[in-house]
Amino acid sequence: MAQRSYVIFMLGTAGSGKTVLTRTLYDWFNEKHLDVATLNLDAGVRRLPYNPDIDVRDLVNIDNLTEKLDLGPNGAMIASMDLIATKIDEIKAEIDYIGPEYLLVDTPGQIELFAYRSSGRLVSSVISDESQPTSVFLIDPSLAMRPEGFSSILLLSISVAFQLSLPQIVAISKDDIIEKEQMENLENWIESPDSLVADIQSVGQTSLSQQLGLSIMEILEQFKTTGDLIPISANTGHNIDTLIGQMERDWGERDDFYE
Amino acid sequence: MAQRSYVIFMLGTAGSGKTVLTRTLYDWFNEKHLDVATLNLDAGVRRLPYNPDIDVRDLVNIDNLTEKLDLGPNGAMIASMDLIATKIDEIKAEIDYIGPEYLLVDTPGQIELFAYRSSGRLVSSVISDESQPTSVFLIDPSLAMRPEGFSSILLLSISVAFQLSLPQIVAISKDDIIEKEQMENLENWIESPDSLVADIQSVGQTSLSQQLGLSIMEILEQFKTTGDLIPISANTGHNIDTLIGQMERDWGERDDFYE
Repeated sequence: MAQRSYVIFMLGTAGSGKTVLTRTLYDWFNEKHLDVATLNLDAGVRRLPYNPDIDVRDLVNIDNLTEKLDLGPNGAMIASMDLIATKIDEIKAEIDYIGPEYLLVDTPGQIELFAYRSSGRLVSSVISDESQPTSVFLIDPSLAMRPEGFSSILLLSISVAFQLSLPQIVAISKDDIIEKEQMENLENWIESPDSLVADIQSVGQTSLSQQLGLSIMEILEQFKTTGDLIPISANTGHNIDTLIGQMERDWGERDDFYE
Repeated sequence: MAQRSYVIFMLGTAGSGKTVLTRTLYDWFNEKHLDVATLNLDAGVRRLPYNPDIDVRDLVNIDNLTEKLDLGPNGAMIASMDLIATKIDEIKAEIDYIGPEYLLVDTPGQIELFAYRSSGRLVSSVISDESQPTSVFLIDPSLAMRPEGFSSILLLSISVAFQLSLPQIVAISKDDIIEKEQMENLENWIESPDSLVADIQSVGQTSLSQQLGLSIMEILEQFKTTGDLIPISANTGHNIDTLIGQMERDWGERDDFYE
C-alpha cells in the first residue's frame, strides 16, 4: 500500500440518509475522475441505490442466519454484525485488492449495531488501518425540530465519535425538505448556542435540562469553532462540495500534524 | 384514575440487561405485595424470562409484517415500532384496565428504535400520561471498559433522556461479572471525574477528546452530585434496593414539587 488512501464512514440513525449520501459522494468522486469504491456493511438491507464494489451480503446471508439460529430480527442483526467481524480479514483483503484512493463505507441501518458493539468497533478499526479515516454523522432533521431533540442528536454524535475513535464531520441531512422556519431555528441554534440553551430551559421540566444546558452550550461552541455542522442535501447536491472541502481540510491538517 | 401510578421504563443498548432487570424488579415488587404489572414493547423478541401482563406481540406480528412488506430485519423492526404507535390507544386501554400501581416497561432490544424515532417518543409519552414516569438507563459494562467508552455511554444516556423527556437513573448493569480491577476503574472515574478526563486525554489522539474532556467532566460532576450512577446486578439482586430507593426519592421530590 504505497499510495495514501482515504476512508469515509457514513454514520447516523436509521433513516438519516447514509445510503443516499454514499451514492451521491460516489457520483461526485467519479465525475472528478477520482479513484473511488463503495463498501456496504449492512447485511440486512434489501435494496441499495448504488452497486457496491464490496458487499457484506456476499459474505453473510442474514435470512439463513435467522432460520438456522431461530432468531428474531434484532438477534439476526446482532448475529450478522458479529459474523461480519469474524470475516473482517476477507473484507480487508478485498479492499486491498481493489486499492481505491477513496473508500466510501455505508454502515448498517441502526447505528447502534455499529457504534455500540465491540464487533462494530473492530470492523471500523481494521477498515481504517493504514489509511486516513473520517466520518460523516448525518443528523436526521425530523429528530432535530425541538431544541431537546437537536441537543440530543448532537450528544449522540459525540458519543459515537468517542466510541469509534473516528474524526467526525456533522451534517444536517435532507436540507431540501426542511421547512424554512425550521431551518432558521437550526441556524439560529448553531450560530448562538445560548439561544438553544434558553429554548431548552423554557420547555424543559426535568432538572436534567436545567443542569446540563451549560455543558451542551460548550459542546455546541466547539462545533461552531470547528465549523463542521453543515446542512446538506444528498438529493439536490446542496453543500456536497462544502462537505468534501471540510474532509480535505481535515486530511490536510492531519497530514501536517503527522508528518 | 384516582390512584397515583408509577411507570418505570428500562432503557439501554442491546444486551445491556433490560429484560432481566424487568423480571428482577417484578419479583421485588411482588415480594413486597405491591401492585405491579409488566409491559413488553419489543415486537421482535423470541423468548422472555417473565410472563408479560401486556405484550405488543399480541398486537403486532413481526413475521407477518416482514413477509407482507418484503422487509429486511431492520425495516421490519422500524415498521413494527411505527405500527405499535398506531395501536397505542389499545395498549393504554389495557394498562388502564389492569390499573397497576407500578408498571414496568421493557423497551425494544435496540434503544435506537425507541429513543430516536418519533413513534417511540409517542409511545413513551402516552404510557407516561397521568402517571409519574421514570427510567433506568443500563450501562453495559463491556462498553465502559475504556475511558472513551464510558464517556460515550454517559453521553448516550443523556442524549436519550433529552429525546424522551423522561427522568433517568443511570445504573451500571451486571456488576457481578465485572472484574475487580475494572470496577475500581469505574468507581475511580465516577468519584473523581478529572481522572476520567486525564485518562481520556492520555489515550485520545483526536482533537475532539481534548476539546470535550471538560464538558464531560462537568456532566459527570452532575451525576456525582445527584448520586444516581449505581452499579447493580439483576442476577444477584445487588443494589436493587438502592435503585428502587433512588426512584422513590425522585418520586417523592417530584410529588413535593408539583403539589
